[in-house]
Amino acid sequence: MSELLPEGDPVGSHRVLEPSGALPQSARRLDARGELWPDEIRIRIERLNLDAASYRQLVEKHAGDGGAVREEVLQIVRDRGKMQNPVTGSGGMLIGTVDEVGPASPLGLKVGDRVATLVSLTLTPLAVSDGLEHWDGLSEQVPAAGHAILFGRSIAAVLPEDLADEDALAVMDVCGAPALTARVVSSYGPSAVVAVIGAAGKSGSLSLAAARRAGARHLIGVVPNEREAALLISSGLADEVVLADARDPRGLRDAVAKAGGPADVTVVCVDAPGCEGGAILSTNAGGTIIFFSMATSFSAAALGAEGLAADVTMLVGNGYVPGHAELALDLYRATPGVRDLFGSRR
Amino acid sequence: MSELLPEGDPVGSHRVLEPSGALPQSARRLDARGELWPDEIRIRIERLNLDAASYRQLVEKHAGDGGAVREEVLQIVRDRGKMQNPVTGSGGMLIGTVDEVGPASPLGLKVGDRVATLVSLTLTPLAVSDGLEHWDGLSEQVPAAGHAILFGRSIAAVLPEDLADEDALAVMDVCGAPALTARVVSSYGPSAVVAVIGAAGKSGSLSLAAARRAGARHLIGVVPNEREAALLISSGLADEVVLADARDPRGLRDAVAKAGGPADVTVVCVDAPGCEGGAILSTNAGGTIIFFSMATSFSAAALGAEGLAADVTMLVGNGYVPGHAELALDLYRATPGVRDLFGSRR
Repeated sequence: MSELLPEGDPVGSHRVLEPSGALPQSARRLDARGELWPDEIRIRIERLNLDAASYRQLVEKHAGDGGAVREEVLQIVRDRGKMQNPVTGSGGMLIGTVDEVGPASPLGLKVGDRVATLVSLTLTPLAVSDGLEHWDGLSEQVPAAGHAILFGRSIAAVLPEDLADEDALAVMDVCGAPALTARVVSSYGPSAVVAVIGAAGKSGSLSLAAARRAGARHLIGVVPNEREAALLISSGLADEVVLADARDPRGLRDAVAKAGGPADVTVVCVDAPGCEGGAILSTNAGGTIIFFSMATSFSAAALGAEGLAADVTMLVGNGYVPGHAELALDLYRATPGVRDLFGSRR
Repeated sequence: MSELLPEGDPVGSHRVLEPSGALPQSARRLDARGELWPDEIRIRIERLNLDAASYRQLVEKHAGDGGAVREEVLQIVRDRGKMQNPVTGSGGMLIGTVDEVGPASPLGLKVGDRVATLVSLTLTPLAVSDGLEHWDGLSEQVPAAGHAILFGRSIAAVLPEDLADEDALAVMDVCGAPALTARVVSSYGPSAVVAVIGAAGKSGSLSLAAARRAGARHLIGVVPNEREAALLISSGLADEVVLADARDPRGLRDAVAKAGGPADVTVVCVDAPGCEGGAILSTNAGGTIIFFSMATSFSAAALGAEGLAADVTMLVGNGYVPGHAELALDLYRATPGVRDLFGSRR
């Protein structure tokens, strides 16, 4: 690169075009050029997986007109140099093949590796070259040609050969939840009672399996309806399956208590707003709540616990824990109940 | 009480008039009657302390017309049975004297105790009887007559006799921060490096003092301007004082690194949005961030850490830790630098 370029930074700030000083995720616009800074990697993309919330918003906005959805995605990527839905703020992930590795890249990938990015599309420089011509705009899965950039401090996982792409992606998409659950449950020792709210979902079922492996004594799975209850019971992942509305604080508290709670560790995997109070009331004094739902309200959690005089530790569910993808894939392979639940959601 | 009443619940749900099933904090309207359920306490109020954000919104809305501000506060309390600003969602706290103690109250208070409520006004049933006639509407401090109710699971602290009300209230208002900081710092042992963002403020200065007492090795105080830097330096609370804009992620990271960071424990006490990225980048792998600012965005923290591949534990700053008021008052009494900083903010 012969022009005068900003100095590279492992977090990718050198690709932020505006506003100046922002990190790539909060940036309005990124520089998606294909030339690499020394610690970067370029990926030849194959498929984008749009975040469910983003995809839903686009389809609703365009009343199911796939052509219009496709046009808007193209427009967003052209405008922003990344696929970040301006309304939902969310992105997704992508699959592709490593095309070039900068000499200073610390990620340990090599040209030809087939990878999935585990950092969000909201911060990944992206250029699309085929006009998304192979996509009808009517699926979260977007076949695409073009390139994407990984920074020095990004994460990508090589796709395992023993699993279908679709399955591996579905697992990796939520792999932060079981990893953090395992870490927290381990810290409580073998007497831990664990409640997972939204237990029949992808992150919920993996969190149950992770808690079991981490040595929890009693696992309570909370689900919102009879159908999910039946699925969860037949999966064998939970010791008790509880039917409750997570948005009803006292209802949830009483249901969890009846099933062997309150919990030492409560894992919130349900993507609905208003679950903070119920999670707080379902957790023992001295216990920990892990919020994985993006619908979690920081102030509702903070003020709720204070208002209830609840001595609970509340964690923002960080999607990154070292080794998270490997752990999640391993749990998926080793746990038939998890595979059944993933299968039932297709 | 001879009428047919809902069964009492320690979290106060029996006083929720609408919507049904809500907890008192998220309720639109509470029953503020003076008669007690068996585990409740009634307080004869003396003064309300409006939350700063709520007060500011009211004054701006009414362009500084104190009479109109007073009228709106009265209207809110009449309508909602509590003082919760419908725009900001926030409340405040109150001072008063215990008037009646229900036979089943677990709080350990007795009639005549002069107390401050440590649960928010947003969930405290409140009735005002004097039309706030002694308040000009132009101060967060509201002299008031009337009554308030504490539930079985509320918190109130007896006001200490050796401190002015104003000082005790200012300390108790932020007492969750030093208590949680102390707990987290202790878990890292004597080698801990601690960074406090917004270190010259009330919660920031108490958090520094708490970290010192908990055995931290090196304390970094981050402030936004020269004036606060001078105050913090002369307080002696920090080992290094750093001038940085907490909303500039790389700027904050670099400043903290130069001052002896990255930190094992980062405490965010600054009430501005957009500080998540900087806090994440200023914290060591394996470290912990405690977010005390209500301006914290849950999704910015969660997606930010994931996007930066940052293995950090992120805590929602729970305002309740057992013994928090006593600890904070004790730190205030024992630490001249904290008292100086509190004094400078009047």
